[in-house]
Parts: sequence; structure tokens; C-alpha cells
Amino acid sequence: MPAKLTRAALDRILAEEAPFADMHGFVVEEIGEATARCRLPYSDVSIRPGGTISGPAMFALADFTLWIAVMARIGPVPLAVTTDMTIHFLTKPGKGDDLIGQARLLKNGRRLCVGEVTIFGASDPAETPVAHVTGTYSIPPDPSR
Amino acid sequence: MPAKLTRAALDRILAEEAPFADMHGFVVEEIGEATARCRLPYSDVSIRPGGTISGPAMFALADFTLWIAVMARIGPVPLAVTTDMTIHFLTKPGKGDDLIGQARLLKNGRRLCVGEVTIFGASDPAETPVAHVTGTYSIPPDPSR
Amino acid sequence: MPAKLTRAALDRILAEEAPFADMHGFVVEEIGEATARCRLPYSDVSIRPGGTISGPAMFALADFTLWIAVMARIGPVPLAVTTDMTIHFLTKPGKGDDLIGQARLLKNGRRLCVGEVTIFGASDPAETPVAHVTGTYSIPPDPSR
Amino acid sequence: MPAKLTRAALDRILAEEAPFADMHGFVVEEIGEATARCRLPYSDVSIRPGGTISGPAMFALADFTLWIAVMARIGPVPLAVTTDMTIHFLTKPGKGDDLIGQARLLKNGRRLCVGEVTIFGASDPAETPVAHVTGTYSIPPDPSR
Repeated sequence: MPAKLTRAALDRILAEEAPFADMHGFVVEEIGEATARCRLPYSDVSIRPGGTISGPAMFALADFTLWIAVMARIGPVPLAVTTDMTIHFLTKPGKGDDLIGQARLLKNGRRLCVGEVTIFGASDPAETPVAHVTGTYSIPPDPSR
Repeated sequence: MPAKLTRAALDRILAEEAPFADMHGFVVEEIGEATARCRLPYSDVSIRPGGTISGPAMFALADFTLWIAVMARIGPVPLAVTTDMTIHFLTKPGKGDDLIGQARLLKNGRRLCVGEVTIFGASDPAETPVAHVTGTYSIPPDPSR
Repeated sequence: MPAKLTRAALDRILAEEAPFADMHGFVVEEIGEATARCRLPYSDVSIRPGGTISGPAMFALADFTLWIAVMARIGPVPLAVTTDMTIHFLTKPGKGDDLIGQARLLKNGRRLCVGEVTIFGASDPAETPVAHVTGTYSIPPDPSR
Repeated sequence: MPAKLTRAALDRILAEEAPFADMHGFVVEEIGEATARCRLPYSDVSIRPGGTISGPAMFALADFTLWIAVMARIGPVPLAVTTDMTIHFLTKPGKGDDLIGQARLLKNGRRLCVGEVTIFGASDPAETPVAHVTGTYSIPPDPSR
């Protein structure tokens, strides 16, 4: 856990600011300097016909994972907001498989953070990307920074 | 209702292929030659702290509305799949407001359809965009076309 | 010409800050409240095999046209910088045809402006889009605004 | 040099199909299985005020590098066309510095190839990204594949 975001601060933010995290069942598996790895468990709320996780659920995972990576880098700023996201759907995920989002920041600016997220199947040892996302978070002004 | 997609065909597709439409409560309000207008009702499953509809729920609305616009143009092809989507979040929607997605196709190719979706608050008479989306659908090969 | 950007101010900015405009031969044809219409003349520096204007030249036109639309709305701020651009190439432009970029702002924020640009052939009466672009400009802080 | 694209085939394609490569001065520095590394030399045609390479020139570099990576993977298919590109500008490149584009494919489909390109300054030992691009190439049908 990096210095900027303690597990306690993260847990408090998730409880107070991110009810959607609970709804989807997102799990924060790992946080680094400017990275995050989160899991979207396979569940009935996010599947599409054929038994794979839907595109919008992948988008939700990417958005969440990038938000965690931003806070890993700049500290607990729950009010950071997404300004743009581009997602490419690459291949269908495995039937019944959980998904993993692996995010890293590409830019850590005073006003904007940009990052990318690769999504792959949790049980795929090759970590073949099923979707790829780039996006921007706008950071609220903070006189103390 | 355009010739290519009858209400009966649409209802059958929604029932069989789009359980997520039901989960979100999407309503297809209007279909034109290469356009569609759909509603995302405000509900507990899609809100974020502050009482507005979340970004991922807007993405889901845009993806759904563009899919309907594609089928309005080329007929019932439920297996068309999203290949890329870019969303810009523009302003916060109104508290408690339903959202409307208004889609139109920009390109109607044999293999790829590209379109844009503007999202605004259902009770905003000025239809100020709260999000804007562009995206591509890949159309499965069809020997009969 | 809107109040925020006089023709004299525009000409000065183009001369001092936009040597690339001259290189490409961009012409500002029309400016509105939050819109701009610019022309990219067909020329040897921007064509690809087959005699049509290249994708990167279309990108340059879109970037330029959106920048003009931003200044049409907020006044002469040449230091506004592009943060993201998404382009969809829709159809090949006509052989030997100039291109027109038509831009309009979707969001006019204190820090970020978002807009879209439609590109079509100058001699196409139907204005069929050959490319579509969305993008964001970051506006430098200005104590006087 | 991977089996799918010999140096001779590449040189022939660049000479016949890519006059823009010559105009920009692009240099193909390295090709791998599904990767490519290309250089955009600093030159008067691509700079902006302040003496750094312009955004549209970075876009051109990314588009070119991804095209080379696609051909590295599937062989000499010069008619592959870009369908979408998303670029995030991250930080200003160094004054007078050449730029390097490093591309890799994320998906190698029968109809669509998706990849990403990271751009950084040629003289920056840390390879700090100055721009990041994702994009799609549409592959023309080939009965022999």
C-alpha cells in the first residue's frame, strides 16, 4: 500500500463514496505507486446472453480501477471526476470468468490525470486483454497542493 | 417505426437478447431511419453519491441507444458488437432526473457502423448535453446482404 | 464575428501563434458564438496515394477548427492546449476535393472545453461526413475570468 | 525483422504507398512480432511555437507506427485503413527533440487490428510518455487468409 492512500482511507472512501463498488462487488486487489488492480466478480447483474460479462460492466470496472490508481498516486480525493474514457473491446471474455482491471497512470498533472486500464479474464494465465481503456480524471483544485 | 425494424421484432430482441435492458429499465422511446431515442429512468441501481445517475450507467445507456439505432438502419442484427466507444462527461445531470440518449448513425458500412449519442436530462427543456459518446459497431457477415 | 474574437485578434493569433495554419493553408471561413468552420485546401503536402486528403491532415484540420471554436467562445487564448482527441474515419473523401471542418462546443467550462468537429468534402452538397472528431481543450487559468 | 514483413517488402511499400512517410522523414527503427518503433525527426514542417513537435505531427507518427506494427503481424497489407484513433497529449516534448513512437498490437483479428502507441522524446532516457494513442485498423478481406 503506497504512502498516499492507506487501507483505512481507502475503506472509508469505498464505504462512503462508492456504493456502486458494492453493487458490482468490485474488489481492490492491489495498489502501487500509480497503479491499481481490481476484480469484477462474475455475477448475474453484469452478464449478457452467452454468459460473459457485459461491455458496460467492463467500462464500470475500468472507471473504478483508474479512480483507485489516481488516488493511489495523489491521495484520497474522492471528488476526482472522469472527463473522458475510450474503450476498445478486443475479444469475448471467458464464460463465467471474473474480470481483472489493471490500471496505471500515464500522466499525473495538477489538474488532470490520464491513465490506461487493461482488462483480462481472472483465470486466463496469459492475461490476454479482453478490453483496453484510456481515460482522464479531473482533479479538484486543492490549495494545499 | 422504420421498415427495417418492426416493433414486434424489436420487442422480441429486447426480450431474448437484452436482459440488461430490463435490469436498467431502458425504454425505447422513438426510432427513425438511422436514429434512436431511449430513456434511462432514475433508479437506485444507477445513482452515485449526490443523487445523480452514474457515469457507467450513462455509458450503458449510450451503448444501448446506439445498438437500437444500428438495428433501425440495418434491421434486426442482435449480434452486432461494440468495438470502441469514447465518452466525454460534460456536466452533472440534474438530481433525480431520468436521462435521454439520442443516437444517430454517422456511417452505415457493410462491416462497421459508426454513430454518436448525446445524453441529456429528461426534464431539461434546453436539452443541455450531460455526456457525448461516439462509437463503432461491428456487423457480422451476412451472405444475404 | 462574435464579440469575443474580432477578426483583427484572430489574424494576429494566426500570424504569431499558428505557423502550421499557414503551412496547411487553413482558411477560417466562419465563426459563430461557439462554432467555427474552416477549410483545408487540397494540396500536395496532405494527400495520400489515390489523390485524397490523408487522415493525419484531417486530424490537423479538426484540431485547428476546434481551437478556433474555443476562442470564438472564450476569447483569444492561444495557449489553450489539446488534451485528447478521438477521430473516426467514415468514408474516403472525394479525389482532389478540399475539406471543410465544422466545429461546435459541447461544453464550455472554466478549465476544460469539449467539442465536436464534422469533416466533409467542400464540393459535396449533401455534406456527408468523411470523419468525425471529439476532443478537449484545457484552458489556462486566468485570474480575470 | 519478423517473417511476415521483410525489409525488402517494407521498403517497397514505403516507396510506393507512403509518400507522407518521406515528407515527415519517418524512420522505421525496429519491427517485432506485433510491434514497431519509428522515429519522427525534429524538423521545420512539424513544429509549433516554442520549438516542440506539434500535436498533429504526433498523430501522424502514431498512425504510421501502428500501421507498421499491423503489417509486422499480418504481412504487407498496405490497404489496411485506420478506422478510429484516440490520442491523449500528456506533456510537452523537449525543445528540438526527435520523437519515438513505440507501437504494439492488442488485438489481431481477421477484420480489425487494435493497438496502442506510446510516444516519447528520443533523448529522454526515462522514456516519459508525451502522448498515448489507441486505434483500430480495418483489414481488407483476403481470400487467402
